[in-house]
Amino acid sequence: MTVAFSVSARDGNARTGELHTAHGTIRTPAFMPVGTSATVKAMTPEAVRQTGADIILGNTYHLMLRPSAERIARLGGLHKFMHWDGPILTDSGGFQVMSLSKLRKLSEQCVTFQSHLDGATYELSPERAMEIQHLLGSDITMALDECTPFPASEADAETSMQLSMRWAQRSKDAFVKRDGYALFGIVQGGIYPKLREQSAHALTSIGFDGYAVGGLAVGEGQELMFRVLDFTLPHLPQERPRYLMGVGKPDDIIGAVMRGIDMFDCVIPTRSGRFARAYTGEGERNIQNARYAEDARPLEADCPCPACRHYSRAYLHHLFKADEMLGPMLLTWHNLTFYQRLMQGLRDAIAGNRLDDFAQAFLRRYRGKDNDKA
Amino acid sequence: MTVAFSVSARDGNARTGELHTAHGTIRTPAFMPVGTSATVKAMTPEAVRQTGADIILGNTYHLMLRPSAERIARLGGLHKFMHWDGPILTDSGGFQVMSLSKLRKLSEQCVTFQSHLDGATYELSPERAMEIQHLLGSDITMALDECTPFPASEADAETSMQLSMRWAQRSKDAFVKRDGYALFGIVQGGIYPKLREQSAHALTSIGFDGYAVGGLAVGEGQELMFRVLDFTLPHLPQERPRYLMGVGKPDDIIGAVMRGIDMFDCVIPTRSGRFARAYTGEGERNIQNARYAEDARPLEADCPCPACRHYSRAYLHHLFKADEMLGPMLLTWHNLTFYQRLMQGLRDAIAGNRLDDFAQAFLRRYRGKDNDKA
Repeated sequence: MTVAFSVSARDGNARTGELHTAHGTIRTPAFMPVGTSATVKAMTPEAVRQTGADIILGNTYHLMLRPSAERIARLGGLHKFMHWDGPILTDSGGFQVMSLSKLRKLSEQCVTFQSHLDGATYELSPERAMEIQHLLGSDITMALDECTPFPASEADAETSMQLSMRWAQRSKDAFVKRDGYALFGIVQGGIYPKLREQSAHALTSIGFDGYAVGGLAVGEGQELMFRVLDFTLPHLPQERPRYLMGVGKPDDIIGAVMRGIDMFDCVIPTRSGRFARAYTGEGERNIQNARYAEDARPLEADCPCPACRHYSRAYLHHLFKADEMLGPMLLTWHNLTFYQRLMQGLRDAIAGNRLDDFAQAFLRRYRGKDNDKA
Repeated sequence: MTVAFSVSARDGNARTGELHTAHGTIRTPAFMPVGTSATVKAMTPEAVRQTGADIILGNTYHLMLRPSAERIARLGGLHKFMHWDGPILTDSGGFQVMSLSKLRKLSEQCVTFQSHLDGATYELSPERAMEIQHLLGSDITMALDECTPFPASEADAETSMQLSMRWAQRSKDAFVKRDGYALFGIVQGGIYPKLREQSAHALTSIGFDGYAVGGLAVGEGQELMFRVLDFTLPHLPQERPRYLMGVGKPDDIIGAVMRGIDMFDCVIPTRSGRFARAYTGEGERNIQNARYAEDARPLEADCPCPACRHYSRAYLHHLFKADEMLGPMLLTWHNLTFYQRLMQGLRDAIAGNRLDDFAQAFLRRYRGKDNDKA
């Protein structure tokens, strides 16, 4: 294997360990902040690191359109371009092609689409997805897949999954192997146990450095998502990292970790931060709510982030009311810190063989009466 | 005097020294970043401090409307509210009432106006301006004046100036004296030497801790502004600091320092930073210009700010093209750093008795061929 993954402790199906890449070590379970366009929105890379993040995610779709993978390569690669010296995972672009672009046309060979920015036509094939991620210099490259829509009939989910498996083989064939650089395959198959099993077996036959579960967090709800994990994960090799793409809220993450997921990415902490929604141990707070206008307390008393150490809820409230950029900056910082503290809590709990207690205590407080639900 | 001002060196009419306030020492000549609504836009206070700023400015007009001086006082004052432990100067609100509010009515007693935010009616009198700035906890309070419009006839400028002088006396009477807290008067009189002289004499008779020159940077142009300084400053006491309000571009500041100004404030570095305009030793650059799309060089090779140390012009260009918040954050940081480095250069040049050489060398390079004029 080109990247080493070591599990140091297990608790039920959950595990904690380390994934070693060219740009450093990722402690798992890990949450990856999303840096779509070569920046984690409203944050400096130094601030991202301070939140406790080991790895960030970049979006191939956005970067191939602007400023282009070739330009980033000429400027020394994505790490240098955006001044992040830690590991970077890039998605394959497939999901955003489906969700953002216009006039898509899918063939066996590739997907053709028009940029949502200027209407220009692009092609994305497994080979091109590998080339782009190579140009970017990604530590973890994702195979190109078709994200199966939800809902989909079993027949449609099977057709889609089988295309993704052929693309997975082509991704593997096109990927340039180097020490410290990983290629992950993506399990598809919708909500159908037989298809997920077939997909997992197809991918493990090809052989990847890690396995992602795709096609979830697309509207199916937490209960169904957990059920898919329950019947999918047993078919993935224990000795390789597992990544649940696009997930999620704190309780989604806890449930998925307890089922054996090692890696997550999601825009929730950053996007919420820009829209005045704070994640705290006592639930979500909409800091624009009038109840915070003269609240002299910090957002969270025990949080080490600058938003909590230096400012009152009243000040954060004021910043959003006055539409000041420092509001999104501070709340993004806080939310990312909250997510990383949750991951540290999960890692410690697994290492201490007390994950159930940790999860119950966290969720009891998180879902308590003080939650704004705002 | 309630604040000590010591001049350590002179070079022509220019001087360098220190102004000592309750929250710390201000090295002069000083540039004050503008923190209108209790935040220097797109910057943390730690970052503002890192640029070299000793003091920031807050806007009484904005703060009295939102979140209100009374609320800030209940939350512990402006320093605590915004987490800035250095000196703060607040303007009196008079200028913004004239430039931003609706349905103004000026009387001998006060100005009545409607908020530009919600149309609510407010009154601002010299006594209320002192009360608000006291509630905020300003280290340097500005007397309430009427900013004389430009152009104005000599008769109109005289009427306006005389009202400001009566308000200056009322401001002085209402100001609560405390060690380390200063009250500055504001010279008015438009472009008329006799009126400026009368205003300066009226203010020095009342007695203030410092003297501002108001009514400039309102469209009169640099040449006329310098002429007004030339015939106004000789009437102000040498032993007190002089503050040119709302100025300016780097060459405005240099010319004003050479005429004996000690303090400046201006939104140019922060506002320009949010709109992709960078100030550099080689002039202004519009970083959105296509010429920077693959420019791997830093904005300024010798600048210690994060924008210059960690990123290429190409990356900054990308951030603005992609409308990413980090673009304004980094360019504001750079511009404030550039301004503070200019002030340090001026202070050092005055101390070394080589201000003319410094100014000529700076302006030759700044106005050179590499200036975008963009």
